[in-house]
Amino acid sequence: MNQTNALKETYYQSKYQLAQHGKRNIQVLKNAFENKDGKLESDMYGAGQVIEEFQEKMAALLGKEKAVFFPSGTMAQQIALRIWCDEKGVRKVAYHPLCHLEIHEEDGLKEIHHIETILLADKSRVIEMADVAEMRDDVACLLLELPQREIGGQLPSFEILKQISEYCKKKGIKLHLDGARLLEVLPFYQKSAAEVSALFDSVYISFYKGIGGIAGAILAGDGDFIANAKIWKRRYGGDLISLYPYIISADYYFEMRSTKMGQYYEEAKELAALFNSCHDITTIPLVPVSNMFHVHFLYAKEKVEPVLAEVQQQTGIGITSYLKDTDENTCYFEISLGDQYGIVPKAEVKHSFILLDKLMKQKFN
Amino acid sequence: MNQTNALKETYYQSKYQLAQHGKRNIQVLKNAFENKDGKLESDMYGAGQVIEEFQEKMAALLGKEKAVFFPSGTMAQQIALRIWCDEKGVRKVAYHPLCHLEIHEEDGLKEIHHIETILLADKSRVIEMADVAEMRDDVACLLLELPQREIGGQLPSFEILKQISEYCKKKGIKLHLDGARLLEVLPFYQKSAAEVSALFDSVYISFYKGIGGIAGAILAGDGDFIANAKIWKRRYGGDLISLYPYIISADYYFEMRSTKMGQYYEEAKELAALFNSCHDITTIPLVPVSNMFHVHFLYAKEKVEPVLAEVQQQTGIGITSYLKDTDENTCYFEISLGDQYGIVPKAEVKHSFILLDKLMKQKFN
Repeated sequence: MNQTNALKETYYQSKYQLAQHGKRNIQVLKNAFENKDGKLESDMYGAGQVIEEFQEKMAALLGKEKAVFFPSGTMAQQIALRIWCDEKGVRKVAYHPLCHLEIHEEDGLKEIHHIETILLADKSRVIEMADVAEMRDDVACLLLELPQREIGGQLPSFEILKQISEYCKKKGIKLHLDGARLLEVLPFYQKSAAEVSALFDSVYISFYKGIGGIAGAILAGDGDFIANAKIWKRRYGGDLISLYPYIISADYYFEMRSTKMGQYYEEAKELAALFNSCHDITTIPLVPVSNMFHVHFLYAKEKVEPVLAEVQQQTGIGITSYLKDTDENTCYFEISLGDQYGIVPKAEVKHSFILLDKLMKQKFN
Repeated sequence: MNQTNALKETYYQSKYQLAQHGKRNIQVLKNAFENKDGKLESDMYGAGQVIEEFQEKMAALLGKEKAVFFPSGTMAQQIALRIWCDEKGVRKVAYHPLCHLEIHEEDGLKEIHHIETILLADKSRVIEMADVAEMRDDVACLLLELPQREIGGQLPSFEILKQISEYCKKKGIKLHLDGARLLEVLPFYQKSAAEVSALFDSVYISFYKGIGGIAGAILAGDGDFIANAKIWKRRYGGDLISLYPYIISADYYFEMRSTKMGQYYEEAKELAALFNSCHDITTIPLVPVSNMFHVHFLYAKEKVEPVLAEVQQQTGIGITSYLKDTDENTCYFEISLGDQYGIVPKAEVKHSFILLDKLMKQKFN
């Protein structure tokens, strides 16, 4: 077994894991459906009680006129940007260089919609007011991702958000929220989902991040926007005859976890502090602003892997199943807090970090 | 209650229904998952045992090198046609005027891919060899739908299919099969799925028609084609983190029903003969070639509705929940045989058709 596999194996065989809600197995679906009456009718091509009620509930949560359930955020967000481009007659949008649409969607936005993208800020930080004000291109829409996932889940302040929103309104630029993890940042902002969404013209949220559902997304906005989004949803082949497997599980886990985001946030800060107390380990952000952060090591992946594997094997606490190299010859992994952290006995958590610190010092001092 | 609602109500309150497998409620999902081990791991973005095994099984069924599971046929087929257009460098495809892509997808093919469509044959009949041979346009791909759903599920002969396939090969035109109901026509052709698919470069099949699953589709073809289709699947936002709710149910109902298509076909012929024995009622096709057909009445919807509602109310046998007007001031509905027809006592079926014939004569003689 090579050491990359050893890291993975010791993680999956560990008694406890620090991150996530638990295994992504089909029990996730079985639990959501267990107490549901089998006579409940399927949704049919976007109509029916199951989908309509959930859409109304999410529209209310986000303080928007209408909402539509999508099988994926990829589909929902490309469509949102296309609609705003069509409305303005400008095929240009702005977003962060590490935006999901830029790096994870096989260039769907460009290949399908021929929309040009303006990249704001640099890869290490979030978009600030100055980045927006300095933009010389006339774009149809600016997309902000809260939190910016690929840099550990960083956030601009709420004050900056308000400034950007006002500026965009004045300039005739639509503001779209990639809120895949919107609920996860509300405890930091101390705002409701509707208060944050009010700064945006359209909002997308996901149900398999902090919520821990199976898949699926909501796109919300005004009535015309959503009516248009439904047409595009059908064009994309996203208007499935039945989306209830995702909707019912989204609703089930929303009810279970949407109120626990404050707890995950506090735990993330606690856990990040533990990582930061270890030799040559730093989290980004240093103090998390949501349930997520990145854990950076000063050394390359192949040097750190055996250390983490040994900690996992000795303590039975799963820290990570993988490491990723960076361009600077360092490595990192992502962590998102969920239901599992609360289950690990505190003494064992503490013990594992004492061991991690010790082994890091032994190896890298 | 108006008479359209009366037709619907009497249908849904009937003790038996002639068509379909049963209600589309969430019990369909619960049954498929009931005996599945909760520890089975979710698929992850197209990888994992659940999705890979099913794709291999379907590739083998269809006699193709590779297959990929899609959330919808709409997405799968647009992508298939786009790939063939890109390969040839020609943005033009040919299909039937009542092709799903032409009438049910909000023009996704044109809006997303800017592909021009050539309509072959007329709306009342299937595409024959002469239609293909007379085509002057250089198209990248010809799509054939077997059976042609919107005209009652009609089919060309297998001999014609072979001729079209040979002709297209010679002319450098890719042949794509809209086989949403492919399994349903195999008893008529007396061929295996692989024998029919061998005539085509790419094949799509659906899991919620005759199979009765929840949603989802398979697209099959050679290795390069499927690798390319996976890129487009991600672009479209169809590469969901988890598709197992559809895959596991597709496999469950495939195992339950793929061997029953011969029975549904025989029952469809029996049931069509009963409709044709009634006054001023004709089926299209007159003798079904699959599990489906259309039932046409010589009169407009508002005249026929009360007759059908009365039959349903008196006999407790559900015939249809709706009627659709045609341009010729007649009306029709679609019927697809499934598990329910075999449950209805034959004597009661016969009695309901005697009553239907009698009431049709009383009203329209």
